Amino acid sequence: MSAPAPKALLFDVFGTLTDWRGGVARAVAAAFAARGAAVDAHAFADAWRGEYQPAMERVRSGARPYAQLDELHRENLDRTLARMGFEGLFDEDERDALARAWERLPPWPDAPGALERLRAIALTAACSNGSVGLMARLARHAGLRWDCILGADLARDYKPRAGVYLAACAALRLRPEETAMVACHDHDLAAARAAGLRAAWIARPLEHGPGRPAPEPEQEWDWIARDLHDLADQLGAPRP
Amino acid sequence: MSAPAPKALLFDVFGTLTDWRGGVARAVAAAFAARGAAVDAHAFADAWRGEYQPAMERVRSGARPYAQLDELHRENLDRTLARMGFEGLFDEDERDALARAWERLPPWPDAPGALERLRAIALTAACSNGSVGLMARLARHAGLRWDCILGADLARDYKPRAGVYLAACAALRLRPEETAMVACHDHDLAAARAAGLRAAWIARPLEHGPGRPAPEPEQEWDWIARDLHDLADQLGAPRP
Repeated sequence: MSAPAPKALLFDVFGTLTDWRGGVARAVAAAFAARGAAVDAHAFADAWRGEYQPAMERVRSGARPYAQLDELHRENLDRTLARMGFEGLFDEDERDALARAWERLPPWPDAPGALERLRAIALTAACSNGSVGLMARLARHAGLRWDCILGADLARDYKPRAGVYLAACAALRLRPEETAMVACHDHDLAAARAAGLRAAWIARPLEHGPGRPAPEPEQEWDWIARDLHDLADQLGAPRP
Repeated sequence: MSAPAPKALLFDVFGTLTDWRGGVARAVAAAFAARGAAVDAHAFADAWRGEYQPAMERVRSGARPYAQLDELHRENLDRTLARMGFEGLFDEDERDALARAWERLPPWPDAPGALERLRAIALTAACSNGSVGLMARLARHAGLRWDCILGADLARDYKPRAGVYLAACAALRLRPEETAMVACHDHDLAAARAAGLRAAWIARPLEHGPGRPAPEPEQEWDWIARDLHDLADQLGAPRP
C-alpha cells in the first residue's frame, strides 16, 4: 500500500468503471419488450458476455486478424440469439442497434467523480478491449472523463496479451513501472503485473449481480481498494 | 458550405489549436536566459520547426522505423543548437527539458471554448503527428478537451500519409466521408480529402508570427472559417 504514486492510471472499463451486466440487460429487456417477447434479460446478458473471451481468443491466438470488439459483440449477439432460440426475432438493423448497448452502459456510481479526482494526480486512460469509438461513445454516455483512450485498437490485440499494456505505456512515454493498471479482474492485473506495470484492484461485488459472494483479490496487489474513491484516497488525491 | 455536419471532427494541433511558435520561443528564451546567453528565440523556434518535416519524412519514406515525435523533436533540438552555434550550451537534462516545450504550448484563444462547443455536435479527436503522451500533456496544459487522441501513434506513421487519417476513422468506426479534418494547413487538408474525409480550413494568420500576409485557402474546402468559433457557428453548434 506504500508504492509511489503512479504517473498514469490505466483503467479497465467493462466491470471496473461500468456495470456491463445491468446496462446490457436493460437494453435486452427493452428490445424484447418492443417485440412482445419474454426473456430473462440478465441471463441473456451473461450468455452474451460468455462469448466475449472465446471471440477475443481467436484474435489473440492469431487464428483471426484483429477485429474491433464492436464486431465481436455483434457476432456474439447472433450466436446468443440463436442459442437461446430467438434467431428470427430481430432484423439486422435491430441487432445492430442492440449491439450498441455496450456504448450505453451505466457507470458505477463512484466512477465519474473518482475519475476526476484521479485525473488531478496522474494521467488517466481507458485501457480496455473496447475500440476507441466504443470507448469514446461510452464515456460520453456514462459521464466518464479520461485523458486518452488506449487499449485494444492501439495494440491491435486483446488483453491480457502483454503487448496491449506495453503499447499503452509506450504511447504515454512512460516505463511500465511508472503506470498502474486499475481493474476489478485479477487476470487483467496479473497480466499487467507480468508486463511490469503496477496493479490496483477494485472491489466490484455487483459485477455479476446481487447475491454472489464478494470477490477477494487473488494476489497482494500494489493497491487494494473498496471502490475508486478509496483508491483516490490511498493515492492522496484531493477530495472535491 | 452546405455539407452535412460531420459525425467526428479530427483536429490538427500544432498551428490549428496551439501557437507552437510563440510557445517554443518563450521556452527557448527562458532556457537561454538561464544560461545568460543571447538568442533570437523566434528564429530558433523557426529553425527547430524547420527540421520537423525532414525528420518525419525519414519515417514516412520507410528509411527509419516509426519513432515518436518527441524523439524527433529532441534530435532536432540537438541539430538546431549545433547549427546555430550553441552546441555546448545545455547539458542532456536541460535539452530534455527544453524539448518538452512542445507539451506546454499556449492554445489559440478561441480553441478551448470552441472545442467545447464542437464536442456538443460531434465526436472530437486530436489527429496530430504528436504522440499520445505529448497530446495528453499538451491538452492538460492548454485546457483543450477532446474525446480521444488519434494520429501518428495509432497509425505508426505521419501525416500526410493516408493511413493516419484512415486509421483515425477506423478507430472511431466511421466512414471517411462521415468525418472532417480541421486544420490551418492546406497540405494536411488535401491529404485528408484525398483519403475521403471532409475538410475544414481554419485561418491562423499569426502561426508564423505577425507581419506576414494572411494565408488564403488553396482549395474550395468544405468549410472555410475565420477561427474555430466561426466553424462552430457554421456547423450549427449552440453558443454557450
